[in-house]
Amino acid sequence: MEESVGIVKTQSFTFAEPPNEMILESGKRLGPITLAYETYGELNRNKDNAILIFHALSGDAHVAGKHHKDDPKPGWWDNMVGPGKAFDTNRYFVICINVIGGCKGSIGPSSINPKTKKPYGLTFPIVTIKDMVRAQKELIDHLGIDQLLAVAGGSMGGMQVLQWAVTYPDKTALCIPIATAARQSPQNIAFHEVGRRAITSDPNWRGGNYYGKTPPTNGLAIARMIGHITYLSSETLRLKFGRRLQESERLSFSLKPEFQVESYIHHKGETFTKRFDANSYLYISKAIDYFDVSNGYGSLEEAFRNVKSKFLVISFTSDWLYPPKDSEEIVTALRAVNKEVTYYEIPSTYGHDAFLVETEKIAPIISYHLSHARDRGRMVSYPVENHPLS
Amino acid sequence: MEESVGIVKTQSFTFAEPPNEMILESGKRLGPITLAYETYGELNRNKDNAILIFHALSGDAHVAGKHHKDDPKPGWWDNMVGPGKAFDTNRYFVICINVIGGCKGSIGPSSINPKTKKPYGLTFPIVTIKDMVRAQKELIDHLGIDQLLAVAGGSMGGMQVLQWAVTYPDKTALCIPIATAARQSPQNIAFHEVGRRAITSDPNWRGGNYYGKTPPTNGLAIARMIGHITYLSSETLRLKFGRRLQESERLSFSLKPEFQVESYIHHKGETFTKRFDANSYLYISKAIDYFDVSNGYGSLEEAFRNVKSKFLVISFTSDWLYPPKDSEEIVTALRAVNKEVTYYEIPSTYGHDAFLVETEKIAPIISYHLSHARDRGRMVSYPVENHPLS
Repeated sequence: MEESVGIVKTQSFTFAEPPNEMILESGKRLGPITLAYETYGELNRNKDNAILIFHALSGDAHVAGKHHKDDPKPGWWDNMVGPGKAFDTNRYFVICINVIGGCKGSIGPSSINPKTKKPYGLTFPIVTIKDMVRAQKELIDHLGIDQLLAVAGGSMGGMQVLQWAVTYPDKTALCIPIATAARQSPQNIAFHEVGRRAITSDPNWRGGNYYGKTPPTNGLAIARMIGHITYLSSETLRLKFGRRLQESERLSFSLKPEFQVESYIHHKGETFTKRFDANSYLYISKAIDYFDVSNGYGSLEEAFRNVKSKFLVISFTSDWLYPPKDSEEIVTALRAVNKEVTYYEIPSTYGHDAFLVETEKIAPIISYHLSHARDRGRMVSYPVENHPLS
Repeated sequence: MEESVGIVKTQSFTFAEPPNEMILESGKRLGPITLAYETYGELNRNKDNAILIFHALSGDAHVAGKHHKDDPKPGWWDNMVGPGKAFDTNRYFVICINVIGGCKGSIGPSSINPKTKKPYGLTFPIVTIKDMVRAQKELIDHLGIDQLLAVAGGSMGGMQVLQWAVTYPDKTALCIPIATAARQSPQNIAFHEVGRRAITSDPNWRGGNYYGKTPPTNGLAIARMIGHITYLSSETLRLKFGRRLQESERLSFSLKPEFQVESYIHHKGETFTKRFDANSYLYISKAIDYFDVSNGYGSLEEAFRNVKSKFLVISFTSDWLYPPKDSEEIVTALRAVNKEVTYYEIPSTYGHDAFLVETEKIAPIISYHLSHARDRGRMVSYPVENHPLS
């Protein structure tokens, strides 16, 4: 039986104390920087069994286990991280770090600026995916890990995987970017920008200075509702809700929400506002929109030319936010510069969310590739249906 | 050379004067009802050359030509309606009527309620696609037309086509539903509902009583921005804008919009607020969400069983709002009850908007089928690439 990692605790690490602030991609300085992180399993004596997992837009460092025994829900990838699971904590030391710009323990716009003793708000500098990854590297160094066994993540987590591979070519044996892209598409930028407009036009946003006052929950809920629709496939919504009504058998002939799918997305919007900071949503969505791993290299091939790690790239057929085509672009560029890549396009009806729910399909593949992450020579690539461990 | 219909004038028709109000699907009464409409070409002596075109969510009765010679833009389907065009005004008498619930001359929430001398606002009753079609039938009767040669429309216009076929089975020879569905999908309902929330949470909306005051332009712009993204394909946005910046060569490292695609959707949102009423957006989007042509029949096949017309069904490969699958559902149901259907899935990268822009691909097909609308026996269906007129 697969088990949980049990009760876990979020830790923190602070670096970049003035005058040694971190210099961000924008040229601005940020420090001190606190990172919230969790670890699962044990780092071995050689310190060569560490895996760094990157979270997505609204995620956090809490990947697996519970914070206390009455915790209603475990971490966001609990089905993938634990004893005997894909990221097997009996074998590997798994780390996850909240991104900078976030609101889950790492420094972000809701953090107190030590210079002013007030929340940063919009004085917080713009951070990029590269800045996020560079901050995380500080903690990996602090833990004394020279080379990670693997870096893995879905969505924005996958962008961090690609950035890690490019920025630190020697610092991981295997890269596992899932349901992601080498650059944010204009369609996705457009969806994000509508969400940002909803937040910034909420009267409670007050130019970002809402801390201690009523926050812009309506704008944030709208942003999340848009996002949530893009995370699911049309097919999922059809199967889950169809055109069923919430309460009645008959149409109400009113303007109020009455289809189940309407209540569902309102609910998703509402619950999000209870756990996420609106300014962090602005900053992190912007970091995603800015992401293009080929920035400064001229082409994706050039960006990948010096990469040393192997790659396991995974996409899902019904993901229309980061469709298989985006993963194929990554795979094609890596192969063009002769890197070792295994690519799986996983059949799924779950849309983008598949990376969180299709555990049974991706766990054996990831487990297999982790076992062979430091093998010399090419990995054998099996079709999904004949995969040795599926 | 194809020509324009020239300078045209919107006309109006009023019916359902109290105490003979129209009884809506909700059971509520509405009247007097004024419809704005335009016609192009001449009705022949037999009155058998009339074609009724239905417009989409934000459309109006002004399909072709200009209202005055300095008009910057012609009607919304000018490339399809005119002398020598697909809907050839040398041969056909073309009619388009603004839907009830709208804000382009037909009765809607911004109209003055004669009982109160004030705009209806939210006292305007909910209208359905069936109500829209029933109102239009009054004008067709008034014009003395017993049977239309064809009814045609894209998106919500296509829904009206299907509803017309079911409600008035003898009253058209040919039905041309384009880029539409027999029922609104839960994904599309969800997108609409986010837009409605943006409008109704705009402080300027004031429960719908904003007439004569500042209207809820921000909420309406957000609703339109969401809508606009769904009308285009990811591919269109990639080709049209890519990740190009608006002004600078370099990222600004700020929260402000700077990608061209961001300026574009903001602009689309802004211009929409100058020509459309926010309450009409609520009412019409709700009518679309309510639409399920099988309502009251138990199944699509049963709904179509008594239909007498031929069908020409058209979808576009990259339309993800009303994907080809939705059209296939219509075609399959019609064929199951032995109706005469020709179906074209048109290759296009333009997404849902293809129905407005892929003139060269659909004009010859529509023209051909209009010529044969009253032929006895089955129409020959040619593959697009070998179409006799393409």
